[in-house]
Parts: sequence; structure tokens; C-alpha cells
Amino acid sequence: MDPDAPLGVFDSGLGGLTVVRALRERCPAENIVYLGDTARVPYGTRSAETVVRYAIGCARVLVNRGVKAIVVACNTVSAVALDMLRVELDRPVLGVIVPGARAAVAAAEGGAVGVLGTTGTITSGAYPRAVASLSTRTEVFGQPAPLLVSLAEEGWLEGEVPRLVSQRYLEPLVRAGVRCVVLGCTHFPLLQRVIEAEAASLAGAPIPIVDSASATADDVAAFLTERGQRTTRSGRGKLELFVTDLPKSFSTVAERFLGEPLGDVHQIDL
Amino acid sequence: MDPDAPLGVFDSGLGGLTVVRALRERCPAENIVYLGDTARVPYGTRSAETVVRYAIGCARVLVNRGVKAIVVACNTVSAVALDMLRVELDRPVLGVIVPGARAAVAAAEGGAVGVLGTTGTITSGAYPRAVASLSTRTEVFGQPAPLLVSLAEEGWLEGEVPRLVSQRYLEPLVRAGVRCVVLGCTHFPLLQRVIEAEAASLAGAPIPIVDSASATADDVAAFLTERGQRTTRSGRGKLELFVTDLPKSFSTVAERFLGEPLGDVHQIDL
Repeated sequence: MDPDAPLGVFDSGLGGLTVVRALRERCPAENIVYLGDTARVPYGTRSAETVVRYAIGCARVLVNRGVKAIVVACNTVSAVALDMLRVELDRPVLGVIVPGARAAVAAAEGGAVGVLGTTGTITSGAYPRAVASLSTRTEVFGQPAPLLVSLAEEGWLEGEVPRLVSQRYLEPLVRAGVRCVVLGCTHFPLLQRVIEAEAASLAGAPIPIVDSASATADDVAAFLTERGQRTTRSGRGKLELFVTDLPKSFSTVAERFLGEPLGDVHQIDL
Repeated sequence: MDPDAPLGVFDSGLGGLTVVRALRERCPAENIVYLGDTARVPYGTRSAETVVRYAIGCARVLVNRGVKAIVVACNTVSAVALDMLRVELDRPVLGVIVPGARAAVAAAEGGAVGVLGTTGTITSGAYPRAVASLSTRTEVFGQPAPLLVSLAEEGWLEGEVPRLVSQRYLEPLVRAGVRCVVLGCTHFPLLQRVIEAEAASLAGAPIPIVDSASATADDVAAFLTERGQRTTRSGRGKLELFVTDLPKSFSTVAERFLGEPLGDVHQIDL
């Protein structure tokens, strides 16, 4: 592939823009094409068959735009559809779960790992599987945390409500003695500060919080370097956004996740 | 139509089961066919064109099952697609917004009306329009309240978090001096008690809370009686459920909204 081809990133909605944000910090010169399947978000509550079908549809759009690799910026898709995507596409496919699991095993230093995610991600068992493939002795405790998704979308990022919600979700993890907590949903980096504070307050000592978006960006950068696929351009790469529906509060929510003003936004049908 | 034909009810997901629950209290002998478009929930964040297309698809499934009338148990669809459904279908179509608005105007006794709903319902302006058609002098204040949807789905129906979230959403309505609050989303009846308590505490006196699910059931009963379309059977009617995807926590969430054990559940494609 041409190393100057863009990276393709997709997610069920806009949460994957936190991965784009991390990628643009880590590999600023890369051009990125992002597809958010906003017409069918959220995937987290769908059956595995449906998620696989939707994911293949999204990935094909990116392949048709000539991307050099595909980053699945969605925990649900990474949990259930990664193998199928690798079979169906002739492009490298990178997910968010293995990088998050790897960073978590390192941060937990032999202790147990806690995971906050959507109900779909947690019940899929994808994090325990990924951790087991890295370290057979590490215990993993999962906690579905759907209200954190809504808080991130609403922009309620500090104050009493996010504090109490985080507390309620973290409590069983801290009681289980986890030594690190993975943010296993692309929405959660927005709430990292409050989650960190609550975890420390419940445990009586700081607990490292692993952001799978940053871990994924590190992985993508390493992958491109190893393959000699980093762009030869310098300067700031372009970002093109595609969505399948334009939700009413699109710009506000998208900019909150992306952390910069939006560039071009195109609506497409799938 | 045969008065013993079933009533058709549809919603973007499972929230419309609160309308089914109210219908089964108000017209217990009626057979009901319910369709929840769980593969494409939520509609509240989609564009109006998409909502209309999805709604027509759902309504046709019910027409093909021989229903005598269609109840749109979804505020978003009632807000943007009711006229189009009436044009496209040869069945009576009843929504949730006009009944809710009528009950609110009565309860507010000339004062202002507050509405809690999804972002889609509030920005559509459907409640102000419906209220204006009933009473030109009644002011309407809308408040998008997306976190209440997640709380209802999670089953967090009492305690500090629902209290604080309700408080935050109710505060601008109470400050505007509303004399009644409409629950303009089918998920919210589950949180009625905490919303009622917070409204009273903020206002320093009770504020009537209008549940649009109950108001709609009253409307449907009156409509069937006027048209001589009430079922001739007695006893408890049958309830058949159709969904477009079987979400992981389907039974728990569905029973929470329905308030009784589930009957037959069938999955269909749309």
C-alpha cells in the first residue's frame, strides 16, 4: 500500500472520535477518514450477527476510499467482529481491545484488572479473553456502565452526578481488589478525571486508569512504523468525517469527543 | 374493521411497553400486537427523514398482521411522522403527543406547561404545537432529558442519582413557573415517583405530573368506544411481541417497562 494513503477509522457513532483524537496526537501527519454509523448507533445492545453485518458494511466504505489500514474504534465491534473483518477485507485491521488489555496488564503489575464498558462489551467476555492471551494469571472483573455513555454524550463531565455514577460502577471493582481500571468504551476518556478521583477515593490510594483510545493510538503508530507505512508527508494531516445520519446535536457532541473543530462532514447511506 | 382484530402498537424500542401496560389496564380485553424496532433504536437522535422511513416500515408490519388501529407509542415518531403515516396507511393512527398535551393543559389550569423528553422530541417543537392547538394562551417550556432514558433502562429508579438528575432537568422548568410537567418520553413513567418528589421539593408545593402513556390509553379507549370498535370478547387479551433484534438484556428491560411477564416474543427483519 501507499504509505501516504489515509488511515480508516470507524465506530458505531461518534465515540470513536476519542480514538481519532489520540491518533492525531500520536501520528499528527497521517490523513484520517472516519466513518460513524450514526444511523444505527448504538451497536452495544445488538446481537453479534447484526454487529458483524454492520461492521463489514462500514469497513467496505473505508476500503473503497483507499485506506491503508482500518482501525476499529468501537469496543463492541472489536469484541465480536474483528476476526470476521480480517477474513473479509484485504487490509490490516486493528481493534481497541488488545491494546487496552496489554496496557492494563502492564499497569496492574500482576494484580487484577477491572473493565468499565457497555453491556455488550462486558458480556462478550472480550477483555478477559484478551488479558488471558497475554497473562494467564491476571484476573479480570467487568462492570457494565451504560450511564457513563449518556453522561459523556450529555457533557456532564464533572460534579455530583458523574461522581456518584462512577462511584456506583467502580465500587464492585474496588471491592474485588483490582489494581488498574480499563476504560473499555470510547466514550469514557471524557470522564477519566472523575473516574480516577472516585477510584482513588474508594480504594484509599490511586488506581491507574488505562484509556484504550491512547493505547490503541500507540499500537497503530508502532504497527505503521514496523511495516514502513508511516506517511512521508509532514505537517498536520487531513481529517474527513463520514456519518450515516446527521443527529441533531452532531457538532457539539462530535467536537466534545474530537477535541478540535470539525472539518468536512459528509452524510452517506449504507 | 372487525372489532375483535388486535390493536397494533409500535415504538423504536421497548419504552413503548409502558403504553402497552397502560392499555392493558384501561382496555384489558383487547388483543395487542407490539413491534419494537430494537435493531434501530433510538430514533430520538435520527433525522426526520430517517424517522419517517423507519416508522412507515414498522406500521406496515402491523397492518399486515390485521390490526384495527395503530398506536404510535413513541414520542419521536408522534412528533415527526404522524401525518405521513396517516397518508400512507388505511388504518386509524393515534399518537402519544396530543393526548399528553391535552391532559397537561387540563392539569396546568391556565398556567404554563413543562415537558421532559428526548432531545429529538423537544427540538421538534411537537408539544408546543399540540398545546397551541388546544389553548393559545398556554406557555410551554421543553427540557431535553436524555439521562432519564438511561436511568429507566438501567433500572436506577430511586436514590441519589435519579434524584439529582431529575433535579437538574426540572430546575429550569420550575424556575419558569410551570404548573404541570408532562413525561414526554415513554421511558419516564418508571421514574414518575422521583420526578414528582423533586418537582414538589423544588417548587415548594406539589406539581401535577402528566404521564403521556396513561393519557394515550384513555384516548385509545375513547376512540374505540366512539367508533364501536371495542372488542366483543371478555377476559384478558393476548399480547404478542415482535422485535427487530434481541438485545442482550431484553427480558429484564422489557418486563420492567411492561410490568408483567413477557408472552411470546418473535424476532423479525425489517
